[in-house]
Amino acid sequence: MAMPSRLHLLSLAALAFAGVVAPDDAFAQGFPPVVPTPAQVRPAVDQAITQLMAAPKVQKVLDALKADHARTVDDLKMLTEIEAPPFKEQKRAEAFLARLRALGLADAKIDAEGNVIGLRKGSGGGPKLVVTAHLDTVFPAGTDVKVKERDGKLYAPGISDDTRALTVLLSWLKALNDSDVQTVGDLLFVASVGEEELGNLRGMKRLFADHLDIDGMVGLEPVPDGGVLILGTGSHRHEVTFKGPGGHSYAAFGQVPSAIHAMGRAIAKIAEVRTPASPKTTFTVGTVSGGTSVNTIAPDAKMAIDIRSDAMAPLLETEKKILATIDESVAEENRRWNVDTLSASARLIGDRPGGMTPASSAIVETAVRANTAFGQQTLLSGASTDANVPMSLGIPTIVIGGGGKTGGFHALGEWIDVTEAWKGAQNSLVTVLGLVGVQGVSQPLLEKRAPRSR
Amino acid sequence: MAMPSRLHLLSLAALAFAGVVAPDDAFAQGFPPVVPTPAQVRPAVDQAITQLMAAPKVQKVLDALKADHARTVDDLKMLTEIEAPPFKEQKRAEAFLARLRALGLADAKIDAEGNVIGLRKGSGGGPKLVVTAHLDTVFPAGTDVKVKERDGKLYAPGISDDTRALTVLLSWLKALNDSDVQTVGDLLFVASVGEEELGNLRGMKRLFADHLDIDGMVGLEPVPDGGVLILGTGSHRHEVTFKGPGGHSYAAFGQVPSAIHAMGRAIAKIAEVRTPASPKTTFTVGTVSGGTSVNTIAPDAKMAIDIRSDAMAPLLETEKKILATIDESVAEENRRWNVDTLSASARLIGDRPGGMTPASSAIVETAVRANTAFGQQTLLSGASTDANVPMSLGIPTIVIGGGGKTGGFHALGEWIDVTEAWKGAQNSLVTVLGLVGVQGVSQPLLEKRAPRSR
Repeated sequence: MAMPSRLHLLSLAALAFAGVVAPDDAFAQGFPPVVPTPAQVRPAVDQAITQLMAAPKVQKVLDALKADHARTVDDLKMLTEIEAPPFKEQKRAEAFLARLRALGLADAKIDAEGNVIGLRKGSGGGPKLVVTAHLDTVFPAGTDVKVKERDGKLYAPGISDDTRALTVLLSWLKALNDSDVQTVGDLLFVASVGEEELGNLRGMKRLFADHLDIDGMVGLEPVPDGGVLILGTGSHRHEVTFKGPGGHSYAAFGQVPSAIHAMGRAIAKIAEVRTPASPKTTFTVGTVSGGTSVNTIAPDAKMAIDIRSDAMAPLLETEKKILATIDESVAEENRRWNVDTLSASARLIGDRPGGMTPASSAIVETAVRANTAFGQQTLLSGASTDANVPMSLGIPTIVIGGGGKTGGFHALGEWIDVTEAWKGAQNSLVTVLGLVGVQGVSQPLLEKRAPRSR
Repeated sequence: MAMPSRLHLLSLAALAFAGVVAPDDAFAQGFPPVVPTPAQVRPAVDQAITQLMAAPKVQKVLDALKADHARTVDDLKMLTEIEAPPFKEQKRAEAFLARLRALGLADAKIDAEGNVIGLRKGSGGGPKLVVTAHLDTVFPAGTDVKVKERDGKLYAPGISDDTRALTVLLSWLKALNDSDVQTVGDLLFVASVGEEELGNLRGMKRLFADHLDIDGMVGLEPVPDGGVLILGTGSHRHEVTFKGPGGHSYAAFGQVPSAIHAMGRAIAKIAEVRTPASPKTTFTVGTVSGGTSVNTIAPDAKMAIDIRSDAMAPLLETEKKILATIDESVAEENRRWNVDTLSASARLIGDRPGGMTPASSAIVETAVRANTAFGQQTLLSGASTDANVPMSLGIPTIVIGGGGKTGGFHALGEWIDVTEAWKGAQNSLVTVLGLVGVQGVSQPLLEKRAPRSR
């Protein structure tokens, strides 16, 4: 889960996910979700989840998850203690791949971007659902990732975001295999790279470019029980550099354009850009720097721009307006001094697509109904995660939790309390099984889509 | 002489003063001065200088200057090796004061700002002329100021700018006293503080505030033989700081103004300010910085503005226009988000008044005619020096050299070649004697002015 983006969430419920407010408090205090939770679900969803919860075979899987708890915690410690800084996920990927293979996905592999991918085929004719967790953490190489136990909690950088989720994927696989459960649709197990920060979701971008037949995705993140992320705010970031010849403020005056003046012209125009309130679309020039000295016509200036939106169309439209101000401003500054010696260039430094899964979609209703089965009220919220990629493609996608109480993400004090964490793993697996269906028990709730074209 | 400001000079002759181009080359290549040198001088000027050059008493003084050369070089080494960083001129001031007293100005003293001041009274009824050099250098405390001799040159930080001039004042005083020359007008010997950089001419500002009866000034700087500075470009510098509450680029969007956006609005307006070509008036936003991160609405931003003019009125008018953009931009940014949480404040960080002594004035013609007497062609140019203060007050003021070839100002490799340097000291003293007159030889060419009011 990308922290800075998580703060997108607007609602203080977001802070609950960040561990600032305990999730229960967040719910108790009635913080508004991004959209209301559906009061009812369609009959097919209700029927499928009812069938699953009643099926002895499914009950056996859920019991297996509970019984696997201690082993899962061992996996958690093992994987957490393998560093996985941005762009350096390989060692952890290899350890995860070895586990996937040992647990029955012999053909699992690491793709060209570094994602670990293993397919558990269904009985046929069903949808293909990706279930994911991300390998990378925000922590640089050399961070102390030794797991420490204190006051009933496990402390270590990255332990809850997102290593717990990696172990839930493994536990699901083991329980399904040990209980001989045959899903109708395919499950594509993915441990992704590049979810955090400058990774810019490179793992997911590659996955969805390589696999055009994915019908839906369930991402696992340290979301508290009952939480369902359906909004993935997209963001594009640009660093814009202005360059001119520079010169003495008095001697060269009138002959030389100013990189700072051109940038100021651009910022003034950007400050007046208008964006829709819904889908919420925002922008800011977050940082500026430039110039040599007070008495030098600036030869250089630089600014970093952040543009975000809950939907791709207004994101791209706002970006277009903002980038247009750069060229206009350069032209104005050159015209002011009758020269052509000033130029500017923009570099994309952040690229997270975005989108939203409708609250009324089957995938969301499935999660809502599964939550109900586990006594959890649903909160529909948003964050910037791997899910942004499929959401931007219109592929049904949700992000849910894998159990445990968590907090301190992106800080050295990150922690997880694994007490009864299996309950979260059970709850989310029922959602997944509802979507792909279980042979002899329920039909898939996720629809097969026409394959995307390249 | 203030280096950055010296680059004002527009003409490449400026570079000659900076030692980049040898002065002779500068002349030879015909670089244009800021205004043409008068082809003729008024008869009174011609007559006075002719009388002075012919007078045995004056010739005796000039011979005394030549004879004093070696002692002057000793003074130069002694004073150069007493550090005088900005705002830390006191030790050198005390040494200079001791010399002034020893050479006959028993009542010399250090004023409240730190200037050394000694009055050599005339016979009465004449003008009061200030003759100055500045004590301070640009070099910070701890700089190696030991004088090194190499290839016939003396090397040391500050040796030519402006320590040589200090020794010329002392040599003039000794020669006048030894030769029993009585001037008609008064000579106020001043070694000033605060000429360089952030000193902002504090010594001169104080001198002209304390002494309302000064009729003219001759400043000594490392100007090559024949050079006469008549233009003192004024400058005002402001540091403007914008402050707002800051906030997350997405979560707080719409509720929080941006310090960077407000600053950009101001810069865009400043970029369109128009100034007169003559008196040349210039401006630039030289440096900018601000913001916390790309995804934070900036809580702060800062810019440094340089405004210059060859005359005070357009300087002040341009400053007014520029400062007005700050308030307008703050108001616009607050209005954009319907808040009042953004503010800005400007701090004056540079304050050098400016002005120009007309090329047709008696003081300039006196220098031109004295140069002719020494076989020197005159180049009328400009710089930012102590002379800016009296120029801004309309008091007849010129800056001339004190002899020697000089270069490398404001760099650790600063040097002076004192070969025949006495010739420059003679030439400039004749200019001074022309202005104040010598009893029994010539009438003062400098007019007495009505005292200024406080």
